[in-house]
Amino acid sequence: MSYKNFPMVPRVIFGRGSFNQLDEILAAKRLSVNAPFIFLVDDVFKNNNELTSRIPLSYEDRIVFISTKEEPKTYQVDELVEDIILKTKAQPSGIIGIGGGSILDLAKAVSIMLTNEGEAKDYQGWDLVKNPAIYHVGIPTISGTGAEVSRTTVLTGPDKKLGINSDYTPFDQVLLDSELTKDVPKAQWFYTGMDCFIHCVESLKGSYLNAFSQSYGEKSFDLCKEIFLEKTYDASDVDSQEKLMMASWHGGMSIAYSQVGVAHAMSYGLSYLLGTKHGIGNCIVFDHLEEFYSEGVAMFKEMKAKHNIELPQGICAHLSDDEFNIMIDVALGLEPLWENAIGKNWKKTITREKLRGLYQKM
Amino acid sequence: MSYKNFPMVPRVIFGRGSFNQLDEILAAKRLSVNAPFIFLVDDVFKNNNELTSRIPLSYEDRIVFISTKEEPKTYQVDELVEDIILKTKAQPSGIIGIGGGSILDLAKAVSIMLTNEGEAKDYQGWDLVKNPAIYHVGIPTISGTGAEVSRTTVLTGPDKKLGINSDYTPFDQVLLDSELTKDVPKAQWFYTGMDCFIHCVESLKGSYLNAFSQSYGEKSFDLCKEIFLEKTYDASDVDSQEKLMMASWHGGMSIAYSQVGVAHAMSYGLSYLLGTKHGIGNCIVFDHLEEFYSEGVAMFKEMKAKHNIELPQGICAHLSDDEFNIMIDVALGLEPLWENAIGKNWKKTITREKLRGLYQKM
Repeated sequence: MSYKNFPMVPRVIFGRGSFNQLDEILAAKRLSVNAPFIFLVDDVFKNNNELTSRIPLSYEDRIVFISTKEEPKTYQVDELVEDIILKTKAQPSGIIGIGGGSILDLAKAVSIMLTNEGEAKDYQGWDLVKNPAIYHVGIPTISGTGAEVSRTTVLTGPDKKLGINSDYTPFDQVLLDSELTKDVPKAQWFYTGMDCFIHCVESLKGSYLNAFSQSYGEKSFDLCKEIFLEKTYDASDVDSQEKLMMASWHGGMSIAYSQVGVAHAMSYGLSYLLGTKHGIGNCIVFDHLEEFYSEGVAMFKEMKAKHNIELPQGICAHLSDDEFNIMIDVALGLEPLWENAIGKNWKKTITREKLRGLYQKM
Repeated sequence: MSYKNFPMVPRVIFGRGSFNQLDEILAAKRLSVNAPFIFLVDDVFKNNNELTSRIPLSYEDRIVFISTKEEPKTYQVDELVEDIILKTKAQPSGIIGIGGGSILDLAKAVSIMLTNEGEAKDYQGWDLVKNPAIYHVGIPTISGTGAEVSRTTVLTGPDKKLGINSDYTPFDQVLLDSELTKDVPKAQWFYTGMDCFIHCVESLKGSYLNAFSQSYGEKSFDLCKEIFLEKTYDASDVDSQEKLMMASWHGGMSIAYSQVGVAHAMSYGLSYLLGTKHGIGNCIVFDHLEEFYSEGVAMFKEMKAKHNIELPQGICAHLSDDEFNIMIDVALGLEPLWENAIGKNWKKTITREKLRGLYQKM
């Protein structure tokens, strides 16, 4: 038996207002005046002076605003890398992602592709990255995905939706400032928070679980329960914002020696075919997974009711056979997720018909 | 307000039997055939072939067995460093500590002092270390101290018992193999586990606490409660050994943005004067701290009763005024601990008389 030697984020700063310390952190990491920092920022902040005015820009540093209407794509990574190579005189000093899971994943992927040949799609999988990435910093502005701490960057490529899982993927530095999450709209807060909750259920119920992942998963689960069941939603509740940030962090860590499961596998299918965003996609799928996660799904339905969340219905109602097959192929391709959820013999019960039946309910 | 940019252990491997992977981990870090790995090993393992035969030795690598009868001393660090410099042709490839908190702290300190001038005592304090340490690996063989994950290495010097707190202190690699803890005697298991429990109480009740440290502290506290109150002691219970290992890890992390408190401050005094070992010293002190930590102390007494632990009594009964003053000086010198425990105005209530009164009960 061989155990994974897990790479952790080596530096983390946590605190309300800690975004103001970014300047100081980056100053120590600048390689030269020709080696800029590139800030990849969710374009929801484009006219948000409160944030943008505090992004420390010197020399050739620049901000690239990125739309997150769609899930991040491998070609988007390749375009960003090409643009950076064309416009900068030297290898950048670092890539700083400021946003949700999509932006954080793009920042991780771009930092990898600046030192590795070929295209991003070539590295979708496990441990395919050869060279260390350039210095990269993750600054989440919404909590739940765990992208700030994970060893993967999930991308939709021409053939598949799959992460670049590698020891070089995790950020070199993470900055956790809950103030950056204060303007997240309620529905988005819920969907992304549920990404974390669903992570935990899948990790804790999975066959890969060990005491390391369990302890992180349980803490994250407890925090989600407190925030989404015991407390009432309040956009000005700093304590909840900080706790959700930690739930996301621990939820991400719980995957270290574990895996996600059925909801993630099937929601990858939805995203690939329909472009469904990851957070809401997980919710749409998880809502129909009582047979796999009975207690978790019951709790999820309670949370949904408490916060008056209405999920889209019938999104698969008019799909063709070919379209169902595409989703099923993507979902079945995620073998470790199924093995974690169902066990080594998962292929006996998880048939194409089974998945089609589930997708048809959504 | 400025927040600490906390250095985390960048690599961790967790799993029963993962000690067998040490060879592979170190092979990738060897600088040259003249640059050995030095293994600092608790001498309790001296004739333990099961462990020593699995320490991977090549070229000039060597094992140094170290007695942990006493708390680690700054002069001990200096002697180890001098010995290493005299006997090796090149800067070592790394220092590997295999043992409890004392050995882990020595390994951290030696790795720092191999690249920093002067004596270990010069670096007791906060952020005094100038140069990065050499590669160092921590492998705990008993759970509870949190030394495997902390940013300090606690040493007794000529003037004080105080840690070398720095960004360069944390291990580059930690290996968590609960199998190495299977032969820990029951009393030692209890005292060292209580170090963790007391950490958590002090951290969670402290004024420095934030959501980051709280989430780790709560998880560690919950695990301690499960292991020491809900379960019965069983030397063959692998699940408990793994959970206690994680309790120690999370307990250490909970200090990241927090601090320990009254028990640690006062037990440092005991150790300095009487050489009392840290685990049992914390227990002796904590047993008398109802006024500061009423619930925590009540729970501690319950745990003590459940496991039939009898603490030494009257260890301060025959001390002279000078001796009391020495302990009080050491304890009062740990200002951040008191500020965390009592608040900014701690000097108003924590007088020399107060501490003497408490010590006299022990």
